[in-house]
Order: sequence, then C-alpha cells, then structure tokens
Amino acid sequence: MLKALNTIVPSEELLGIVNTGDDLTMHGLRICPDLDTIMYTLAGLNNEETGWGLTGETWRVMAELDRLGGDAWFQLGDRDLATHLYRTSRLAKGATLSEVTHELTERLGCPIRLLPVTEDPLATLFETADYGTVSFQEYFVRHHHDITVRDVIIEGALDAQPSPGVLDAIASAERIVISPSNPLISIAPLLAVPGVREALKARRGDVVAVSPLIGGKALKGPADRLLRELGHEVSPLGIAALYADIVGTFVIDTIDANAATGFDALDMRVLATGTLMSDPEQAATLAQVVRHG
Amino acid sequence: MLKALNTIVPSEELLGIVNTGDDLTMHGLRICPDLDTIMYTLAGLNNEETGWGLTGETWRVMAELDRLGGDAWFQLGDRDLATHLYRTSRLAKGATLSEVTHELTERLGCPIRLLPVTEDPLATLFETADYGTVSFQEYFVRHHHDITVRDVIIEGALDAQPSPGVLDAIASAERIVISPSNPLISIAPLLAVPGVREALKARRGDVVAVSPLIGGKALKGPADRLLRELGHEVSPLGIAALYADIVGTFVIDTIDANAATGFDALDMRVLATGTLMSDPEQAATLAQVVRHG
Repeated sequence: MLKALNTIVPSEELLGIVNTGDDLTMHGLRICPDLDTIMYTLAGLNNEETGWGLTGETWRVMAELDRLGGDAWFQLGDRDLATHLYRTSRLAKGATLSEVTHELTERLGCPIRLLPVTEDPLATLFETADYGTVSFQEYFVRHHHDITVRDVIIEGALDAQPSPGVLDAIASAERIVISPSNPLISIAPLLAVPGVREALKARRGDVVAVSPLIGGKALKGPADRLLRELGHEVSPLGIAALYADIVGTFVIDTIDANAATGFDALDMRVLATGTLMSDPEQAATLAQVVRHG
Repeated sequence: MLKALNTIVPSEELLGIVNTGDDLTMHGLRICPDLDTIMYTLAGLNNEETGWGLTGETWRVMAELDRLGGDAWFQLGDRDLATHLYRTSRLAKGATLSEVTHELTERLGCPIRLLPVTEDPLATLFETADYGTVSFQEYFVRHHHDITVRDVIIEGALDAQPSPGVLDAIASAERIVISPSNPLISIAPLLAVPGVREALKARRGDVVAVSPLIGGKALKGPADRLLRELGHEVSPLGIAALYADIVGTFVIDTIDANAATGFDALDMRVLATGTLMSDPEQAATLAQVVRHG
C-alpha cells in the first residue's frame, strides 16, 4: 500500500506506522517481520519470486543450524540475519526500536520513514483449539495458519506506549490509510496500543481503510477463515464493522461492489475500485482513490 | 594439547575443562571462543590455513552487517554463527552451558567431552594504560593485544560455581594437565573459580603444567609481553612460580633446558622435551611425557 501511494505521493510526505505484534526473539535475536518486510519491499530488496524474504538471499547459517539440530523452522536468510544482528546489537546498546528502524531504513535504502507503533513489548497470541496458546510465528509459519483459533490476544497492549511521533502523525496527517491487512491480527495490534484508537477516532473523517477481501476471500493469509472462526461476517461489511468507530471511508474491490450495502448504518462512505495491487494499474488507481477519493 | 593426548589416550578417558572468561554476548548471541575453538579443532573442522575459525567458512552475514554499518570487527563466519544461534537458543530455553556444550560436541563430531569451567558469568577484563577497562575480545581482536595492560581482572569469579563434574573430575583424574596457554589470561580464569585451585592443590603431585614459552617467547599471543608488564619473570620459572601451589611437574621445552634452575625451591619436578605441537612427532612425545613422565 505504501509503495502504491509512493507512486503519487513523495516519500517525505509518507510515514508508515508498523505493527510489532509479530515480533519475536529467536536465538537471542530481535526479529521484526513486519518492519523488515516493509523496509525490504520499499528498498526494492524483496524477493519477488518467493513473495517473501530478500533478493539474492543465501541460507548458509540455517543449513548449518539445521545440521546441528537447532530450531530451523523459522527460516532466516544470511542477509536477513545481518538485519537482526544489527538491530539486536543496537538495542542492547540502548538505542530505541524507532532509532534502529530509522538507521536500518537509511542504510538499506528504504525511502519512506517507518515507525514501530510502539517500542514496548507487544505480542499477538493465538488461543488455538489443539495447540494451546501459540505465538504469531508459530501460528503463521510453523502451522501455516491451518489450525483452529478460539481467540486472538494482544499481549502487552495495556502497558504499551505509542512510539514518539505516532500520535502526532495521526493528529496531523492529511489522510490516514489503514492497509488491506488482516484486521484481527495485523491491524488489531496497532489499534490496541493505548491512544492509537482514540487518535484515529478524532480523525475519523480522514481515515480510509482498504478491504483485504476480494470477492469475499483474503488474497493471501487466513483473514477469511479467522473472521469466520471468531464470529465475524466474512465480507467487506464485516470488516468495516470492526472499524466503525475509526474509519470514515471504506474502499472495497469492484468485484464486491454489489455487496456494498449496510455501510450507511455504519455512517461510512464506501468506494469501489480495483484493489489488486500486484497489478500496477490497479495499484495506481487505488492510490488515487485512497488519496483523493 | 588435548589432540596430542588423544593420540595416546582414548577419547573417553579425556575430559577438557575449558575457560569461559573469554565468552561474550554480541548481537544478542552467546559466544564461547575457547569452547568453540577446542570443539572445532577436535572435530577436525578448524581452518588450518588461517589458524582460526572453521574450514569451508563463508562470510555472508558479516559482509551484510558491515554494509549496514554494524559492529563487524569481531568476525563471525556463517557456519560459526549457527553454533552461536544454537547455543543462545538452547540457553534461552533453560539448558545449562554444560548441556549445550555436550550437545554441540556430539553434533559437531568432537570426540572428547568438554566442560565449561563454570556455567556462571565470568569475564576476563584488562585495565589498560590508554583505553580504560576492555573486554578480552576487545583486547585480543580489536587491539591485537598491542596495548599496555596494567592489570587483569577476572570479573564474576567470586560468585561463580564450578560446573557440575569439574571438581569431581579433578579429584578423580589419573593426571591433570595444564595446557601451555597464557597463565595470566587463559589459565587464571579457570583457577579463579572457587574450589578449582583448592582441588588442584589436593592433587598437586598429579598436576602437570606445560610451559607456553619456547626459548623465552610465547609461540603466539601476548604471554611474554603481559608477564613483563604485570611484573612477572618472562621465563619458564616465572610461569612455574604462578603455579607453585598446584603443580608438581613442570614441562619445559628442550631449548629452555639450560634455564631449568630454581625449580627445586618451588618443590617442582622439571622435565624437558620438545613442546612445539605443530610438529606431530614433538606432539606425540610431549603427550607421552605429560602422561607418563
């Protein structure tokens, strides 16, 4: 979404507030999958073939760790590991996650400023039917999100503070865009940080959310299944209902335009356009709609 | 020394009690240079060309970390990093350093059992003339041990406990060998762990130390310079004096045989033989002398 917006908005006018609920400490290393993926993608370093990880990545360390019988299910490439070593090292020396993120974006060539939503510990946990409570990465990577979820818990949210600049950015931005991500596990942690939801409420008229469903289905990931399991309607309206207090404009895919009823009751504008951002033309149009629509 | 002994003593009759005073946490990873070097060497994985590190090593992660502007002065190869990831991960899950060491020796194919002298934090620090107090690796790797040292401090020693099995091994071993390492910085941390020096005293008649000086000089490393700077005699006798209470037999190089006086006053037997272990013949002879002499 940021990349699409960047085709019509200069980098310096964009700011990404990024979820840290997926973060994990593994092998002693602090790993921030959302920050990393966004940084790598905006820096043009993402691997377009695999759809994840870095281009030109190698797997020497993991191959060796696997040989040692270590925990190698969460694959960390050699280039990617350098990011985690850098971050862990800087944090140990007292830098904040925002500072480290700023350093990494500069050094990797990510043109857009990114802020972790909080510098405090935040963990998206899944209460599952068969595996007890599991972490985000266990759910997503280890179990390929193919297990039954009873509840999602954002651990640490109550004690977390927004990173410096987050609330100010929301208060002063011309527009605030909620990306077409999973509302229950990728957007919810952002909203759970005290102050963020309130800040968005105060700007509701300028908050635009893009539906992650196309034709009633998540393009990737478990959004549709999770919505169902957790008792929500699997539709753009079902998602909009989760954002009723904070979103003034909801963007749905043209395919779902015939299902664009019920938004009036939420006091929400609804706009329909192509939302498939792998298509550059749709991405550019979507950016225009989000920016000016 | 262990490798030389292993040519005449079966692996299962040998136990290495290893210094952990050089250990460091870097980038969040627990690194044990002495344990690692010994493990790699005994497993035949050491790089004979460079004299350190692993054979077939690559440097992808470090190259990338350097590009990010990270701390890359302490070079960690990709294969080597897997060891540190494994160890850090296992320790975080509650395994002891002895347990992790056992797992790593098995998996790497190191045939001899190794025990860290302690599982508690231990840090060999250097009070220097020009750089304040520096860690072992800063002294050794960053400054190439080319700085003036005022004192060596073994931090944490008073609160450390010997690892389970260490004191029993000393009490029950047929012979105890002190390797030809630097007495002030590589052997001193072992002796500083409460109970170890006393256990060796009780076995003094069976404790054999090998001099790290050949022709009055350290084969490698700063032993001679450090002895001088810290007010000790730079000679086999100067080293023997540091071990007077715990060593019954002192082995010196044939080259130094003419300087083999003064040991009587220490109530110490002195034996002379070739001690250059890079020469397989001298290594085998030295092993015989240490074992049976």
